[in-house]
Amino acid sequence: MLKRRLFTPGPVPVPDRVRLAMAQPILNHRAPDFLPVFERCRKGLQQVFQTESPVAIFAASGTGAMDTAVSNLLSPGDHALVVRGGKFGERWAEICEAYGVRTTCIDVEWGRAVEPAEIARALEVSPDILAVYLTASETSTGARHPVKEIAEVVNHSGDRIIVVDAITAAGVYEMRMDAWGLDVVVSGSQKAFMLPPGLAFIGVSERAQRFMETSTCSHYYFDLKAELAVLPKDQTAFTPAIGLMLGLDEALKIILDEEGLEVTWERTERLAAATREAMRAIGLELLAPDAPSAATTAVVIPDGVDGPAFQKYLRERLGYTVADGQGHLKGKIFRIAHLGYFDRFDTIAAIAAIEMSLAANGYVAKLGEAARTATELLAD
Amino acid sequence: MLKRRLFTPGPVPVPDRVRLAMAQPILNHRAPDFLPVFERCRKGLQQVFQTESPVAIFAASGTGAMDTAVSNLLSPGDHALVVRGGKFGERWAEICEAYGVRTTCIDVEWGRAVEPAEIARALEVSPDILAVYLTASETSTGARHPVKEIAEVVNHSGDRIIVVDAITAAGVYEMRMDAWGLDVVVSGSQKAFMLPPGLAFIGVSERAQRFMETSTCSHYYFDLKAELAVLPKDQTAFTPAIGLMLGLDEALKIILDEEGLEVTWERTERLAAATREAMRAIGLELLAPDAPSAATTAVVIPDGVDGPAFQKYLRERLGYTVADGQGHLKGKIFRIAHLGYFDRFDTIAAIAAIEMSLAANGYVAKLGEAARTATELLAD
Repeated sequence: MLKRRLFTPGPVPVPDRVRLAMAQPILNHRAPDFLPVFERCRKGLQQVFQTESPVAIFAASGTGAMDTAVSNLLSPGDHALVVRGGKFGERWAEICEAYGVRTTCIDVEWGRAVEPAEIARALEVSPDILAVYLTASETSTGARHPVKEIAEVVNHSGDRIIVVDAITAAGVYEMRMDAWGLDVVVSGSQKAFMLPPGLAFIGVSERAQRFMETSTCSHYYFDLKAELAVLPKDQTAFTPAIGLMLGLDEALKIILDEEGLEVTWERTERLAAATREAMRAIGLELLAPDAPSAATTAVVIPDGVDGPAFQKYLRERLGYTVADGQGHLKGKIFRIAHLGYFDRFDTIAAIAAIEMSLAANGYVAKLGEAARTATELLAD
Repeated sequence: MLKRRLFTPGPVPVPDRVRLAMAQPILNHRAPDFLPVFERCRKGLQQVFQTESPVAIFAASGTGAMDTAVSNLLSPGDHALVVRGGKFGERWAEICEAYGVRTTCIDVEWGRAVEPAEIARALEVSPDILAVYLTASETSTGARHPVKEIAEVVNHSGDRIIVVDAITAAGVYEMRMDAWGLDVVVSGSQKAFMLPPGLAFIGVSERAQRFMETSTCSHYYFDLKAELAVLPKDQTAFTPAIGLMLGLDEALKIILDEEGLEVTWERTERLAAATREAMRAIGLELLAPDAPSAATTAVVIPDGVDGPAFQKYLRERLGYTVADGQGHLKGKIFRIAHLGYFDRFDTIAAIAAIEMSLAANGYVAKLGEAARTATELLAD
């Protein structure tokens, strides 16, 4: 009997009751029965994003909302600042380029966080920068950028917008759209929302809505103006992903009504902190030791251990799927998830599996020491 | 006990076994377990589209694939011909306009089919037309355009592409992408595929792939070149809607391995023909009598019957949801679905419910005569 366990930082496991909610008979999106479902989703997303501003819902993966956050806010030739410290920072730059937006990139070593002072300098050097594109939690490296501090810098610098990829931050750790002055916040269903991929979310401040008025990039499916016009009526411009929204309704009940958003944040932070200590306890190095995100921990595969063999043993012999590195880190790190539907016992067992696979692949450490450390840290 | 029954031309009911397939634990899209699922979906879609060309899969609703079919094939200033005979024909024109494509529209009365000769004339008048955008089955009116005949005209007219919105045609009735010389065929999951909305499909011929090479419209999420590059490896450029693809795998088994595609076409045509006769038997008028699509039948609400009251009684007292008219037809017609997971007994019962609601709203006809007609026509 080999149980399969998914530990990637998206998709994450979907709770049984959410899967059952999605297995309900489908409703028509124009029928009166669906409207209360949509309304609860719309309001629940505002709570998770900590905003009074509207949060639009697209049938798309998270990248669709990132696309929207460029193609609906800027115009070809506009100047944007992009923080690029991993694969998802690179994606902001690629999207800007696709729409003819001029970009200044702050390149940050993979695994490090950007300094807010660097943002301030860049904005001083280029007063024509209209928007700052940032990754809250860089899932490719496990690093967390200081969104709150950067927002202060941007908000004090003039009429600019700050756009945050919070795909692995919203519902993961403290992130307050309104209180921190974030203009656009983007997320997706397969992360803290514990759903399959296929829904993208985008919160849009009043200031960002003003930017929409003058944007001239071409777009049709991702039309934020059309979406915000019908959103208060609990409608989307095009057919929504109804099944996933039935699941979102249930998942938001778990997050907001049962666990409570701040408790969700604390749980995730605690699992991440215990995992980091457990990895250190057996001599492993973290990729983002100074600015770790609670979403995922990226661990450097130690010298002498073959990355693909380690992953294969973990998956085929022990049943665990963790994430490989991306880009130049492929085969050099592994990434274990904390965001979403994971509790302390899931995490302790996953750490034990990682130890077993390391041992089977020639790594010498006291077997069980990581699981022991995590158990100690995660006890009441 | 009020049973709820959905009879809209998308979303359509999802078979129990497809809902259970989607309720499976989620897989990671990069994990080896998911690759055979993706491969079966990819090959199955080719069978439904009747093509050897690749069929890309987007996490989006069908409109996303329509957007792709403009933004990845043409350039601003290019000239396109659009057949506009309902809401979905209008959508092609809107998308072209959004991307700065010049359009010549052939306006067809809602409920009628375009004449292939009109296409031929328009292509003669404007030799610079590069692409013809067409709706196979115009869901807003229940009319079917003669795709095969139009493709002959276009294919004999030079190096032009024909792009077909087959959202309610693929898997519904005979539609052969390769044999008929269709360059681009677009569909979506919540129609003949019997899934919730959230997947969009786009088949792309070699000629269309040549058009992609020179297209300069801006796009990022809908990047057909990026998708076709990774499709043979059973991957998507961005995270796919994994849960829906688990359902697609199961739905394709029903369509292709169990019922058989041509039998699916015949079943749908037969349900549609019987419904048309049943409506006529009680004196009702069809919106598209001369060119009816098998996807849906649009019926004119008779004089003296209040459209919204008829719909409300049907939904609240009898449990049936049928579709209202769109645009200027709102409240003036109702549309009953045949595509997807409907059999003859579903259809006979729905016809009986329509009769009951008409009677309750003052329409005088021999109650049960429509159900009798359908029963007679649908017997073996």
